[in-house]
Amino acid sequence: MVPAGEATEETIRALADRLAPDDAIIDGGNTHYKDDVRRARELASRGLAYVDAGTSGGIWGLANGYCLMVGGDKAVVERLAPLFASLAPPEGWMHVGPCGSGHYVKMVHNGIEYAMMQGYAEGFELMSASEFELDLPRIAALWNRGSVVRSWLLELTADALAANPKLEGLKPYVEDSGEGRWTVLDAVEKAVPAPTITAALFGRFRSRRDNSFADRLLAALRNAFGGHAVRR
Amino acid sequence: MVPAGEATEETIRALADRLAPDDAIIDGGNTHYKDDVRRARELASRGLAYVDAGTSGGIWGLANGYCLMVGGDKAVVERLAPLFASLAPPEGWMHVGPCGSGHYVKMVHNGIEYAMMQGYAEGFELMSASEFELDLPRIAALWNRGSVVRSWLLELTADALAANPKLEGLKPYVEDSGEGRWTVLDAVEKAVPAPTITAALFGRFRSRRDNSFADRLLAALRNAFGGHAVRR
Amino acid sequence: MVPAGEATEETIRALADRLAPDDAIIDGGNTHYKDDVRRARELASRGLAYVDAGTSGGIWGLANGYCLMVGGDKAVVERLAPLFASLAPPEGWMHVGPCGSGHYVKMVHNGIEYAMMQGYAEGFELMSASEFELDLPRIAALWNRGSVVRSWLLELTADALAANPKLEGLKPYVEDSGEGRWTVLDAVEKAVPAPTITAALFGRFRSRRDNSFADRLLAALRNAFGGHAVRR
Amino acid sequence: MVPAGEATEETIRALADRLAPDDAIIDGGNTHYKDDVRRARELASRGLAYVDAGTSGGIWGLANGYCLMVGGDKAVVERLAPLFASLAPPEGWMHVGPCGSGHYVKMVHNGIEYAMMQGYAEGFELMSASEFELDLPRIAALWNRGSVVRSWLLELTADALAANPKLEGLKPYVEDSGEGRWTVLDAVEKAVPAPTITAALFGRFRSRRDNSFADRLLAALRNAFGGHAVRR
Repeated sequence: MVPAGEATEETIRALADRLAPDDAIIDGGNTHYKDDVRRARELASRGLAYVDAGTSGGIWGLANGYCLMVGGDKAVVERLAPLFASLAPPEGWMHVGPCGSGHYVKMVHNGIEYAMMQGYAEGFELMSASEFELDLPRIAALWNRGSVVRSWLLELTADALAANPKLEGLKPYVEDSGEGRWTVLDAVEKAVPAPTITAALFGRFRSRRDNSFADRLLAALRNAFGGHAVRR
Repeated sequence: MVPAGEATEETIRALADRLAPDDAIIDGGNTHYKDDVRRARELASRGLAYVDAGTSGGIWGLANGYCLMVGGDKAVVERLAPLFASLAPPEGWMHVGPCGSGHYVKMVHNGIEYAMMQGYAEGFELMSASEFELDLPRIAALWNRGSVVRSWLLELTADALAANPKLEGLKPYVEDSGEGRWTVLDAVEKAVPAPTITAALFGRFRSRRDNSFADRLLAALRNAFGGHAVRR
Repeated sequence: MVPAGEATEETIRALADRLAPDDAIIDGGNTHYKDDVRRARELASRGLAYVDAGTSGGIWGLANGYCLMVGGDKAVVERLAPLFASLAPPEGWMHVGPCGSGHYVKMVHNGIEYAMMQGYAEGFELMSASEFELDLPRIAALWNRGSVVRSWLLELTADALAANPKLEGLKPYVEDSGEGRWTVLDAVEKAVPAPTITAALFGRFRSRRDNSFADRLLAALRNAFGGHAVRR
Repeated sequence: MVPAGEATEETIRALADRLAPDDAIIDGGNTHYKDDVRRARELASRGLAYVDAGTSGGIWGLANGYCLMVGGDKAVVERLAPLFASLAPPEGWMHVGPCGSGHYVKMVHNGIEYAMMQGYAEGFELMSASEFELDLPRIAALWNRGSVVRSWLLELTADALAANPKLEGLKPYVEDSGEGRWTVLDAVEKAVPAPTITAALFGRFRSRRDNSFADRLLAALRNAFGGHAVRR
């Protein structure tokens, strides 16, 4: 299992040269599903099988087992089933469809993850700005006890806040690793509205723009029509 | 414990007339937190205590216990602790702060709930539009086995999809019950961005507008400048 | 004509004490329309008329005339017509309805203004990030020559960019003056989706949060589940 | 000048076979700017020039002149200048940069157009839902007399509302023609937030989903956790 991008492409090309017919390559990284479809076709012409395994669970998967969304030819996936079963928690892997579908389902999974994280982040920021002096670490822990918003991400939130209640020393700088973008592109391609996933993605983009041209233009415009002061 | 709004106001007034000093009224509904603050002050002038208990867990709370976020005077809440402990799951209730804070925390909880639900809904709609024929009920169940997006809401999603995989017979009509709106108003008041919570609320509004004036105006405008056809 | 808020309230109270029956007070500031309705009722009980005049045109109105949206009693507004006609450009004022409606229409006007400004700002930021080295001041000017997006705000944009093509020395800090917030609150109250107006408002809020708690929580969470590095 | 897509590709291939060195092809349609770059390279290898001319002004351009954003080799564009000058209003065309830049600038122009249109649409929908009975056609006309939001799109809005004040007989169904999508994809690629442009695009998508799976899932979920009624 390998990371995404050109490194993956090269590894697969190198692997393919060393494999024999009926061998299978499993990409357990975060490849775009259309690249899976292309690769599977190329490898099939050489008698090789290709399987895309979307993998979720983060660094905790090593202990808990990884949730695996597997795309590929049915017979090949069945042959590899023991491997997936050994990596996943009980009932924690599934053959979701043909080549590409594993990474497709994982991509959507990550889009949802963006929206959930952003929803929690907005809620905790609101509470941090409240007139009540709220104990955010304890509230995060409380909500995991029977509330409607309980989740694994909320457990991590509770842990992170317990360790650093005011999140001191952290920069408000949020990376994105690609699947969120792909989900938005897929939504645009399919003409399906995805406002929360996209808002979450744009929030991350915004966190990384220290000197937003858009915001400086807005400040300049307010000054231009209203004489409102600008900050320099 | 009573529902929100004028019915609650009347019930509390009627109750107050029958209570004696040091008695306490608990509002376990979804009152706006500023109404709690006002009520607590009014009742205090008559020697009565008021406690606001935000309650989460839905209809499942009866079996699982309700997650309770309690606002009110410390001594009063401590006196009532056995009551809260009997309703909540273990460690499932908390005195979050002074009067109003219980419902405030519950309000933000519900705002987060809106964003999470909308995030899942967008993801499953995307998958329902996919070129892969995806088994959405099984994918929802799978994701609860170790994935990053596992949650109680996702368990309910899995159940709902298992019972009705294509959600046939349902209308795409989504109500809102007030706390989502209050969360957005609070964000505006505090100048805190809440894009996903608001997108989720607006999505619900949109689901209820059968003949959107905005969309008709957009269609008319496209026709006006571009000669694009409109549907009648 | 006076600014909004408590200063306006006091001025109106002081004025009312000095006026005689049938005198009229015109509020040409940015009062919330519900305050207009309340004030008009209070003043009516003393025989005084109240007129709310939403005023647009910014600091340029002094030369060009102000666009005036007037709310109030029909007979009173007709009596004051020469005054409005002298302040507005030709056909540039209108009696839009009863008390409160003038400021209501102006409030929505400002909400639209937020969305338009943000739309331009996003477009120019995109172009500023382009691989083509685009001459933004000249493009802004060009678009005012026959394009679909030509507008007065775009003329101001062209002027602002001509004066400072890279907007150097400006801080990306954008104030808001209240009507945008009121428009969002009104949309929430009426259950009408207003995604672009709200996105514009939240963008301004975001521009003023130097150390967003939400974004720090997101960074902490990414670290918690994925081991992704955080910036300190 | 030709429409976008495969028809354009074929026309250009057919044209190229009939042209002689130093001839130039102008694409005045809505081609994606990356296709321009590719085509220009291909044609250059045969000694042919390629110019991309983004064209704005809609069906009104025939009378008013089209605003033209021209991308291509400097010498070629200068040679063609008289042609552009004859199509554009005074100072209404510009050589914005190398091949692709003309359509790039036009693409961003259209993204802005989406946001502006949506901003107006939200504002007028709000006013249509107001407790005041507002005369929307007259308000649209009024705002063109000196207000901050005056624009050509608002003039069209005023005309459209004057012709059909309640927009009766129109379906709330809004097409999109591609440039809005490309603008969002470009924003995602460049990691630039574009919340209003994207909200406008998603609003159009939503207007065309009669039986939104997302909204049915939300209704099912509300029923699942809260026992809230669903509509069938």
